[in-house]
Amino acid sequence: MLELVHEGSVTSPKGYLAGATYAGLKTLEEDTLDLGILMSQEPAALAATFTTNRIESPSVTLSRQRASKGVAKGVVANSGCANCCVGSQGLADAKELAFLAANHAGIGPDEMLVCSTGMIGVELPMALLRQNVGNVDVTADGGHLFARAIMTTDSRPKDMAVSLEMDGRRVTIGGAAKGVGMVHPNMATMLAFITTDAAVEPGFLGTVLRQAVGVSFNMIDVDGDQSTNDTVLLFANGAAGGPVTEAGSDSAGVFQDALTYVCIGLAKELARDGEGAQRLVEVVVDGARTEADARVAAREIASSSLVKAMVHGGDPNWGRIMMALGKSGIEVDESKIDLFLSDIHIVHDGKAIPYFKDAVVSAMNVPEVGFRVSLNVGEGSATAWGCDLTEEYVTFNSAYST
Amino acid sequence: MLELVHEGSVTSPKGYLAGATYAGLKTLEEDTLDLGILMSQEPAALAATFTTNRIESPSVTLSRQRASKGVAKGVVANSGCANCCVGSQGLADAKELAFLAANHAGIGPDEMLVCSTGMIGVELPMALLRQNVGNVDVTADGGHLFARAIMTTDSRPKDMAVSLEMDGRRVTIGGAAKGVGMVHPNMATMLAFITTDAAVEPGFLGTVLRQAVGVSFNMIDVDGDQSTNDTVLLFANGAAGGPVTEAGSDSAGVFQDALTYVCIGLAKELARDGEGAQRLVEVVVDGARTEADARVAAREIASSSLVKAMVHGGDPNWGRIMMALGKSGIEVDESKIDLFLSDIHIVHDGKAIPYFKDAVVSAMNVPEVGFRVSLNVGEGSATAWGCDLTEEYVTFNSAYST
Repeated sequence: MLELVHEGSVTSPKGYLAGATYAGLKTLEEDTLDLGILMSQEPAALAATFTTNRIESPSVTLSRQRASKGVAKGVVANSGCANCCVGSQGLADAKELAFLAANHAGIGPDEMLVCSTGMIGVELPMALLRQNVGNVDVTADGGHLFARAIMTTDSRPKDMAVSLEMDGRRVTIGGAAKGVGMVHPNMATMLAFITTDAAVEPGFLGTVLRQAVGVSFNMIDVDGDQSTNDTVLLFANGAAGGPVTEAGSDSAGVFQDALTYVCIGLAKELARDGEGAQRLVEVVVDGARTEADARVAAREIASSSLVKAMVHGGDPNWGRIMMALGKSGIEVDESKIDLFLSDIHIVHDGKAIPYFKDAVVSAMNVPEVGFRVSLNVGEGSATAWGCDLTEEYVTFNSAYST
Repeated sequence: MLELVHEGSVTSPKGYLAGATYAGLKTLEEDTLDLGILMSQEPAALAATFTTNRIESPSVTLSRQRASKGVAKGVVANSGCANCCVGSQGLADAKELAFLAANHAGIGPDEMLVCSTGMIGVELPMALLRQNVGNVDVTADGGHLFARAIMTTDSRPKDMAVSLEMDGRRVTIGGAAKGVGMVHPNMATMLAFITTDAAVEPGFLGTVLRQAVGVSFNMIDVDGDQSTNDTVLLFANGAAGGPVTEAGSDSAGVFQDALTYVCIGLAKELARDGEGAQRLVEVVVDGARTEADARVAAREIASSSLVKAMVHGGDPNWGRIMMALGKSGIEVDESKIDLFLSDIHIVHDGKAIPYFKDAVVSAMNVPEVGFRVSLNVGEGSATAWGCDLTEEYVTFNSAYST
C-alpha cells in the first residue's frame, strides 16, 4: 500500500542529508539557490541513466564514470551553467567541484557525482563555487532546498516522496527533478535525483530504474529537444533495514511499482511545468501490435507541434492526431482506429463521429487534457505526457540568453 | 547556362495547359481559387514521390497507383479538403474527381492524377466539385492560376521556371508548390508539380527526381510534422523536341542540375513562407564523416524548436545548435567543431571564441540567417532550410479549424 509522504522530498528516506546555497551562478538575487548537495550518510547502491546526446557535459562524463562502480555517497548539483562545450576545462572543473563538495561533506572525492544545468558554452565560475560550496549546510530536512537549487527555467520546484511496506518494514522513496525546456524522451531527459532507504541489490536497482525511466521520463516531451546534461540518479542506502531486495524477491514488485510511481509523478510535473505551458496532455495509445509500437506512437503524438498548438487552443482538430500517429511509422489499420478526446468518442473505425463541437471544446478546456487512440490491432499500450505549445514558449525562448 | 524565366510557371514549358476555378471548398469569397487542373497536351513521362506517413489520403493512394505506369497526362488538385481519414468514401471520391476532370479536359480517366490538401477528416464536397469542375479553363498561360488554387495556409503562391540549352535546343522546367505547415523532411513534404518539355527516359526521370527531392523538399522543415498528402509530380512531355535524355546522356547532368535548381528554389520558398515565419534559416553542415551524416545533422538543427526560437529572437545562443547537432546522433569530435553564425566565427575547436554580442545580434537580424557547422572529421556536406518559430505560428495553429 503506497502512501504519499506529506511534503516529501529526497531527504524523506532515512539516512539522507541535503542542502543548498546561493553562489551567484544564475542571478544577483541572493535568495536564489543555485548550488546543492545531496548525500547518503552511508555508502548507497547507485543506478543511473544519462543523456544519449553525442555532445555531453563533462559533468555527465565524470558522473557516468563514477556511477559505473554501482555505489556512491552523494552528488553536487549546480544550476545556471551546463558546463558544456567548454573544451578540456569542463572535466577539470567538474572534478574540482566534486572534490570541493566531497571535502566539505566529509566523504571521499570519488564518492561524489556532479550534475550541472543551465547555459551551454560558458565555463563554470569556479571562483564563485570555491567561495560558496562551504555554505551548503546538509541536513536531514534539506530536501526542498536541494530541489530549489537545481531549477533553471522551472517555475516551481518538483519533489515528492512515497512510503510503503516492504518485508515488514516501512521503506521510503523520495525524488526531485528539474527541466522544463530542451525536453524530449531519450534515455533520461532532465535531471532527477531519487533516494530510498530500501536495501536493494545494485544489479536489480539498475534494472528497475531503466524500467521506471522507460515509462516516465522517457515518455514526456516539452519541445522535442534533448539536453546535453540529462541525468537520473537513484540512491538506495538500506537505512530502513530489512533484507536486500533483488530480482525475484517478494518485495521486488512492490519496490518497482513504487519507484515507477515516483518517476511518473515527477515526469508529469516536468511536462506540466513545460516552458510557457498552460496544460498537461496525456496520450494513451492502446491496441497496438506491440508495446514498443504503442510507445513510439504515444511519444510522436505528444511531441507534435501541431497537436501541442491544438491543445493550447482547446481545438478538437483531431486530424492532427491521425497525422502524428501515421508519421510514427508504426503498423496501423486506418479502418480500425478509434479516437477519444477528453473521453468523448470522436473517431470510430477510422471515420469521424458527428459531434457537437462546443461540447468537445468545452471538454478540452481543462488543465489536463486526455487523448486515447485505440488501434485495435493488438494488445500493446503506452502512455506519454506533453504540454501545450504557447506563444509564451516562443517569446521566452527567443530571448533566453540575451 | 541556366536562365530564370520571367514570371515562370508550370505552363512555361511547351505543351502544358493549366487553369483553376472557385468551387467553394475553402471560403465563401468567390475570388479564392481552390480547384485546378494541370495537363500536358501529349502523354508525358511521369516521376513522383509521395508521403511516407502511414495514414495517407486516398487521393495519394490513387495517384501512387496511376503514377506507377510512368506516364500520364494531367493532375487535378483541390485545396480546402485533404480527403483523408474519411473511410472508403475517400477513394470513391478521388476516382470520381479524376474522372470528372479528365472528362472535362478531354483525356482518359486513367491519365489523370489527383492531389488534395486542406482539412483532414472531412469528405470532399462532391456536389460542389461536380458543379464547378467544368469552369476550369485550361490555357497555355494558366500556370499562375493553378499555383494559387493549391494554396492552403500559404501567404503567397510559389511558382517559377528556368530554361536551359540541352542538345542544341531550349528546354524549360517549371514548378509550383504549396505547403507551409505540417512540413518536415521525409520523402516529399507538401505538394509540388514540376513540368518540363524535355524528353526524358522514364527510369532516368525517376532517378533525377529522387535525387533532386533529396536535396530540396526533403531538407526543409517548418514544424517537424509530416502531412498525410505529400506529393511531388514531375511531368516530362518532350515537346521541346530533341533526343531523349537518359542516364549517361550528354545532357543528363545539365538536366539534373536544372531540376535540382527548381526543386531547391521552390523548397526554400516553402520554408520562407512557413506558418508565422519571419526569417529563413539555412543550415550548412560540412566536414562530416559522410554525406548521410551531414544530412541528418543539418535537418536536426533546422528542425529544432529551440534553434528556431533563437532565430526568431536574433539571439546567438549557439549552445542550442550544439545540442541539436549532438541529438542527431552522428559521429562528432567535439574538440574539432567550428561554428559560424551569419559568417561570424563563433566556436573554434569546440570552444567559444569571445565575440562582441551586439555585432552577432545585428548580423542575425536579417531575412536569411545562415549557420555553418564544420565538423572537420570528413568530407560530407549538406544543406537544410527552416524558418523561425514565432508567436504567430502558435496563435495561428491553436485556432486553425475553429
